[in-house]
Amino acid sequence: MEVTRKNFKESLNTIYTAIEEADFLAIDGEFSGISDGPSVSALTNGLDTPEERYHKLKKHSMDFLLFQFGLCTFKYEQSESKYVMKSFNFYIFPKPFSRSSPDIKFVCQSSSIDFLASQGFDFNKVFCNGIPYLNQEEEGQLREQLEDKRFQSNGAQSFISPSSCKGPVSVPEEHKDFINEVLDKVEDLLNNSDKSFKLEPCTGFQRKLIYQTLNWKYPKGLHVETLENEKKERYILISKVDDEERKRREQEKQEKEQEELNDAVGFSRVIHAISQSAKLVIGHNMLLDVMHTIHQFYCPLPEDLNDFKEVTMCVFPRLLDTKLMASTQPFKELISNTSLAELERQLKEAPFKPPKVESADGFPRYDTASEQLHEAGYDAYITGLCFISMANYLGTFLTPPRDHISARSKLIEPFFNKLFLMRIIDIPYLNISGPDLQPKRDNVLYVTFPKEWKTSDLYQLFSAFGNIQVFWIDDTSAFVSLSQTDQVQIAVNTSRYAESYRIQTYAEYMESRLEEKQNCRRFTECGWLNSVNSNSPGGECKKKIHEFCSRNQ
Amino acid sequence: MEVTRKNFKESLNTIYTAIEEADFLAIDGEFSGISDGPSVSALTNGLDTPEERYHKLKKHSMDFLLFQFGLCTFKYEQSESKYVMKSFNFYIFPKPFSRSSPDIKFVCQSSSIDFLASQGFDFNKVFCNGIPYLNQEEEGQLREQLEDKRFQSNGAQSFISPSSCKGPVSVPEEHKDFINEVLDKVEDLLNNSDKSFKLEPCTGFQRKLIYQTLNWKYPKGLHVETLENEKKERYILISKVDDEERKRREQEKQEKEQEELNDAVGFSRVIHAISQSAKLVIGHNMLLDVMHTIHQFYCPLPEDLNDFKEVTMCVFPRLLDTKLMASTQPFKELISNTSLAELERQLKEAPFKPPKVESADGFPRYDTASEQLHEAGYDAYITGLCFISMANYLGTFLTPPRDHISARSKLIEPFFNKLFLMRIIDIPYLNISGPDLQPKRDNVLYVTFPKEWKTSDLYQLFSAFGNIQVFWIDDTSAFVSLSQTDQVQIAVNTSRYAESYRIQTYAEYMESRLEEKQNCRRFTECGWLNSVNSNSPGGECKKKIHEFCSRNQ
Repeated sequence: MEVTRKNFKESLNTIYTAIEEADFLAIDGEFSGISDGPSVSALTNGLDTPEERYHKLKKHSMDFLLFQFGLCTFKYEQSESKYVMKSFNFYIFPKPFSRSSPDIKFVCQSSSIDFLASQGFDFNKVFCNGIPYLNQEEEGQLREQLEDKRFQSNGAQSFISPSSCKGPVSVPEEHKDFINEVLDKVEDLLNNSDKSFKLEPCTGFQRKLIYQTLNWKYPKGLHVETLENEKKERYILISKVDDEERKRREQEKQEKEQEELNDAVGFSRVIHAISQSAKLVIGHNMLLDVMHTIHQFYCPLPEDLNDFKEVTMCVFPRLLDTKLMASTQPFKELISNTSLAELERQLKEAPFKPPKVESADGFPRYDTASEQLHEAGYDAYITGLCFISMANYLGTFLTPPRDHISARSKLIEPFFNKLFLMRIIDIPYLNISGPDLQPKRDNVLYVTFPKEWKTSDLYQLFSAFGNIQVFWIDDTSAFVSLSQTDQVQIAVNTSRYAESYRIQTYAEYMESRLEEKQNCRRFTECGWLNSVNSNSPGGECKKKIHEFCSRNQ
Repeated sequence: MEVTRKNFKESLNTIYTAIEEADFLAIDGEFSGISDGPSVSALTNGLDTPEERYHKLKKHSMDFLLFQFGLCTFKYEQSESKYVMKSFNFYIFPKPFSRSSPDIKFVCQSSSIDFLASQGFDFNKVFCNGIPYLNQEEEGQLREQLEDKRFQSNGAQSFISPSSCKGPVSVPEEHKDFINEVLDKVEDLLNNSDKSFKLEPCTGFQRKLIYQTLNWKYPKGLHVETLENEKKERYILISKVDDEERKRREQEKQEKEQEELNDAVGFSRVIHAISQSAKLVIGHNMLLDVMHTIHQFYCPLPEDLNDFKEVTMCVFPRLLDTKLMASTQPFKELISNTSLAELERQLKEAPFKPPKVESADGFPRYDTASEQLHEAGYDAYITGLCFISMANYLGTFLTPPRDHISARSKLIEPFFNKLFLMRIIDIPYLNISGPDLQPKRDNVLYVTFPKEWKTSDLYQLFSAFGNIQVFWIDDTSAFVSLSQTDQVQIAVNTSRYAESYRIQTYAEYMESRLEEKQNCRRFTECGWLNSVNSNSPGGECKKKIHEFCSRNQ
């Protein structure tokens, strides 16, 4: 089901129900770009630490817009041994909701846009009919503004709005006659049986004078509003109101304001509902999806990876990445290609079984034969299919074997909260709910050299050491991994008197980086670099999300 | 006429002809945003110098994409006393043309996108079918690559491509039999009367080995190419070629490469044609249009305003801004609102005359009654109408009066190369072909104060000095202009012992800014700030554009 600004409000209950009744949820996002710095291959060093990878993605990917979000809910029907699926394909755009609302800027990467265009992506749906959203801070500010307004309007004053003036109004000489006429008419109104009267159309400045004057002279008992006649001219209508009428209007106004707030929060409400459901959320290669979702709908990402993990656990208490699952035993040996489309294809064939999944009544069917890859709703759907096939395969190991393994089964717990890390050779996943793997890397060297060097120069330099692997860091440095750990010290020793290049062990390199980081922090704390570095919003974000999560539990 | 990637090539001659025969051209651009920094009102201080304004626009507006370009050509038909108009509405997008081509990132501002969406803008046409383009440097690089390739392929070597290996090929053991079989077949081919033979489909690695081996063993006389069979499997076809055949193929290849280069240069060819025509180019409030056009299709803008002026004169030797014209005598007194739609409306009424303009055969008609404002082609069209009405009005001052004033008339020369400056109170235009106006501003004060201050605090501070105007610079500073120059020194004197605020004359302020700038430059030259500031591409750009212009004259 396609959801845009046009049908978002009427679809919300359907969406909430689908989330509430689901056994698990699958998600996917499409973005306006991937990297605003180096190319993706340069961005991903095979020997990145999880911290380094997180920082690179945070730095180079978060200025893009998540503009399509796929949500697919799966509910198991015991009686028919099948899943019933509801899929939603949301178009998202930060349409400013008022003059004072944030005017978001986002980056587009032409290769990503061109790729989506080639897949038939409908940009008009995003930009013309995308659902707006607010992050936690923006929502909080808007809520406060609203509460302030209500607090101030405790009396009847706010009835004559816009009110900004609290004392006698200074009316310019040339408007005095006009205002006195209006005051005479108001006196007449208060002393006769009419309910209201209209003024002739007048200028914005005159209307302001009327509001201010009446606000000061008649703080209670009058309702003043600006209307438009059929010629599009603006005029003022002044009405008498009694206490009951006043309360009714006040309540109406509050309800309207609350609705406007909800409209502005927009798509973030869907993410809040997913979060509050605490259901298992499945994605394929989902680290960027999770980062974007938190960044866009909650808060700018924290500086520190551990803070990010904490925030993520708070927003999505149970995550499962099908790319990581497919790359792990017992699937690793059976699956040759873990890209989403290939995985889905392989998981329909022996030893796996195609999952029994049907679309719920009123929801469109996706046909995996005519692929609609890279539509977020479809990608979320086949991610769900992959999970079901793999989960059920785990059931074949039980005695007696079982055909269906539920999303609550202990068998899938080992795969929880481990997000696939692209192209890191010895750390397959980011562990969201605990410390990360720390491979020793004692066969790895850190080499610096002149910027003219190419990979072949490194192969030549290490030609005596058998097979090596080269991982470029930048123009003048790379990691080189040797096949044998005991040769590391030999390599370091041979380089001692070299002039053009330098070799360190991985451990030495990591230690010097740590020192650098600590020095850098010391300078920052002294205010030395304060003008260069902007303040990290990380801690603040963590606090806010914790408040949010505890409020909703 | 709408021009996208789909019909760009077939439309080029029509476009060139229209430019060539025109008396003048009108242009307009639509961008993906206006300011990525402060809001537009904060960006434009009423007392900016031209240099400051240029730097602000360069800093905060150039990361957006010019994605729709309107060009309207006007040709006067003497015999029928009317203009014949051809309008083109181009959709533009930097689609990467190959894997190694630049992957442009651009910013979108949600308020601008939302505004265009509300006007019915078709984003799919931009992103799916936008015409690509290259700037001068990218075009130069591509051209060099091509020339290098031709130079290298002086022999027949390039016929066996892709070639990267120049020596004997090391064929892995397991492929040796396969390669030897291929070599036997090649020997057979060379010794029999066949023209060519096919190999069975094989892997990419095997194909690479074949290319490399044949490239080394048979540098002349063989043509090797990879084709696809009906099962989409790739196979190799090996053909004998004689000298004549070789030359024909070489020429074909060069023509194809030249065409690919032209395709990549894409929309920039239209801008080059406009530039080379040296025709009068009209725009409405056109400074940003000119800046974006140069930035996107020629080179990153120079740091220095004077360099920018030089570059602009080189690209567009004659410019005319209808907003500036309408704000200047004799039009200033007659025209109350110079926004494009309002101007067009007023210039149809007395004392002006609606211009006689018809669409050329085969070109769509624009109807000014059903406005299509903010489509670049339409905006360019009504900009042209405004120019014609105003130019003709100047003819009424002649004796005898004349109904038609051509784009070549001396009467319009006073309006040349003066681009409207938004919201600067005493410098109406940027003078592209000379030094800018230098108003004295001797009634202006520069005031710094605590960031809690509001406009009302400034009004209070200066309450003894009659009417003042306040121009905010940032949170803690503003210009204040007094109505009387002789009070400036009094104001400065009274502030001498003030602690919370400080007042300087405008002249003092400008002098201290100049010193700051010079100090800053000195540091930069010492390399002190080199790591912070990126190198300015200004000088390089100027040089390149000059080369380009002289090449084309």
